[in-house]
Amino acid sequence: MRHPEAVRWTEDGAAVDLLDQTRLPEAEVRLRLESADAVAEAIRALRVRGAPAIGIAAAMGLAVESARHVALPADAFRARLEETVERLRATRPTAVNLSWALERMRVRIDRSIGRPPEEIVWGLYEEANAILVEDRGMCRRIGEIGLEVLPEGEVSVLTHCNAGALATGGMGTALAPVYVAHALGRAVRVYVGETRPLLQGSRLTAWELERAGIPVTVVADTVVATLMRERRVDVVLTGADRIAANGDVANKIGTYGLAVLARHHGIPFYVAAPLSTLDPETPTGREIPIEERDGDEVRRGFGRLTAPASVPVYAPAFDVTPAELVTGIVTDRGVLRAPYEVAIRRALGLVAARIGER
Amino acid sequence: MRHPEAVRWTEDGAAVDLLDQTRLPEAEVRLRLESADAVAEAIRALRVRGAPAIGIAAAMGLAVESARHVALPADAFRARLEETVERLRATRPTAVNLSWALERMRVRIDRSIGRPPEEIVWGLYEEANAILVEDRGMCRRIGEIGLEVLPEGEVSVLTHCNAGALATGGMGTALAPVYVAHALGRAVRVYVGETRPLLQGSRLTAWELERAGIPVTVVADTVVATLMRERRVDVVLTGADRIAANGDVANKIGTYGLAVLARHHGIPFYVAAPLSTLDPETPTGREIPIEERDGDEVRRGFGRLTAPASVPVYAPAFDVTPAELVTGIVTDRGVLRAPYEVAIRRALGLVAARIGER
Repeated sequence: MRHPEAVRWTEDGAAVDLLDQTRLPEAEVRLRLESADAVAEAIRALRVRGAPAIGIAAAMGLAVESARHVALPADAFRARLEETVERLRATRPTAVNLSWALERMRVRIDRSIGRPPEEIVWGLYEEANAILVEDRGMCRRIGEIGLEVLPEGEVSVLTHCNAGALATGGMGTALAPVYVAHALGRAVRVYVGETRPLLQGSRLTAWELERAGIPVTVVADTVVATLMRERRVDVVLTGADRIAANGDVANKIGTYGLAVLARHHGIPFYVAAPLSTLDPETPTGREIPIEERDGDEVRRGFGRLTAPASVPVYAPAFDVTPAELVTGIVTDRGVLRAPYEVAIRRALGLVAARIGER
Repeated sequence: MRHPEAVRWTEDGAAVDLLDQTRLPEAEVRLRLESADAVAEAIRALRVRGAPAIGIAAAMGLAVESARHVALPADAFRARLEETVERLRATRPTAVNLSWALERMRVRIDRSIGRPPEEIVWGLYEEANAILVEDRGMCRRIGEIGLEVLPEGEVSVLTHCNAGALATGGMGTALAPVYVAHALGRAVRVYVGETRPLLQGSRLTAWELERAGIPVTVVADTVVATLMRERRVDVVLTGADRIAANGDVANKIGTYGLAVLARHHGIPFYVAAPLSTLDPETPTGREIPIEERDGDEVRRGFGRLTAPASVPVYAPAFDVTPAELVTGIVTDRGVLRAPYEVAIRRALGLVAARIGER
């Protein structure tokens, strides 16, 4: 399985090595990020995106930043870490994995009260690395578990945006079952909408699947309904940025429309995400904060003026798909199905129990 | 009512004066087209688009071309006209108005058998001008009749692509009721999706409405479902490129998805078109030829590579909305409602009767 690595350590282990996704597919440029500020800039500018990947990048950025201040007195060192956590958390509001990863890092800091900065730095590297490595494993498990939602025989998957390797530390979430099926020799093909305004479907998903030798066809977002009407799609499979306690799913703008269209055409609609995307603190989709992007991403997204310069633009970056339109949620612990409130609590309860066992 | 003129005669009456829509909104460039070839190129390159406008432009182009050959012997002149009709008809396959307008021109030619070329040229100018002037009147009537489908009070219309002044000889089809409502002092606002790949929504509809002082907001096509979910849309109103005998509607790719989404959200979905868009020769939407566009309009639509250079693209330019999703068809002779087979036959029957009366 040949997929790109969105985020990893540099070879010397001293910095975050990031594939600059804003340059794809025109150029494959890797960045060496040596501070939390550099990582925060990369997250804000969408050089790294995808809920799991930004959590990983933020955790790694915090570890890298901590090493720069190891000479500070313990109190100042600690204050600097706290401030860095908040700076990273503020980069993007919707994906819950960012908070989740930083929360894990904070717990690690709290556990090390009284220890010398060197030891805390080491602990933070260890924790960030664990988040990265665990994410790789979760992606693989999502891929294996997700096989059960792919119909038998030749299968055609419609996805949206990019929930592939470029969105995670491993082989992706929504694309993981596709990678696994392909590796097993199954005939699997993918359709992906461009995903305006930032074209993560055509720029990123098409790029990584083509690179892996998996058949992929790009369509304008206006074509997805016709794909379904023409029976070219067997199953819709997307990622998620946050899943509320009741199963409502926040994901890239356009996902909700796909879910409605899938329901109309009798096509199953699945979401794939690691447990870290489940947010039991958010009761329903209504409480999920939805980031709004700058209208110029629509008006001048390609360097050319594609709308009148001053025309108002409404540009939410995400939408919420109500749980009743979701056929199932493919997680690294199995496929969750309605009633989601119960399934999600049970899935997270298992995790809590396991942590308790340690 | 201040709206642009997509197509008109040049001041000297000797050529077709066209607003080059591929340059909008960056530049407002008018072209002087002095031959059928120039008009055919403009239609193929989408410098003029919109079902009624391409019919008008083709008819005017045929008249202009005829004048260039007036010195030919009668037989050769006639053959040249026939050949020009076919050349213009072949420019685009889906919109029926193109065939309809050229058919009117051909009837005019047939009626003038035996007359000298000068007289035929004059007749063709007259017929083309009648098509242009009648279209202006039809747009206005669609605007007035269409008021009845706008809910009371402040009204928010979602449209798609451009079915405005830029698509017709007059004030448009889907936008005509908006122009009329605005002129009457009603609070009307418009949302329009960009309409990928060629962005007629953001480039053209936003431009002409802003110019007319009508509030308009642009969204990526991925946002339309969210607009409906957030109850920002009272009614969906689009144009049509061809309406089959059973009421199935071919229109710009993305229209079908809007119709499904509107149904899911309980929002009325109306189509606006002159009678010349009704095609009783085509029984259902299945028989409407759907033009496929070059994949590079998606891969490099803006001069930049927005998908891998060689990735397959599926790019139908139109889709078909089944009649059962259409709340009504706003024509210049009234709002047609289901059963459409009957309503369409009756509407066209009236026209045939009136022509008979002459």
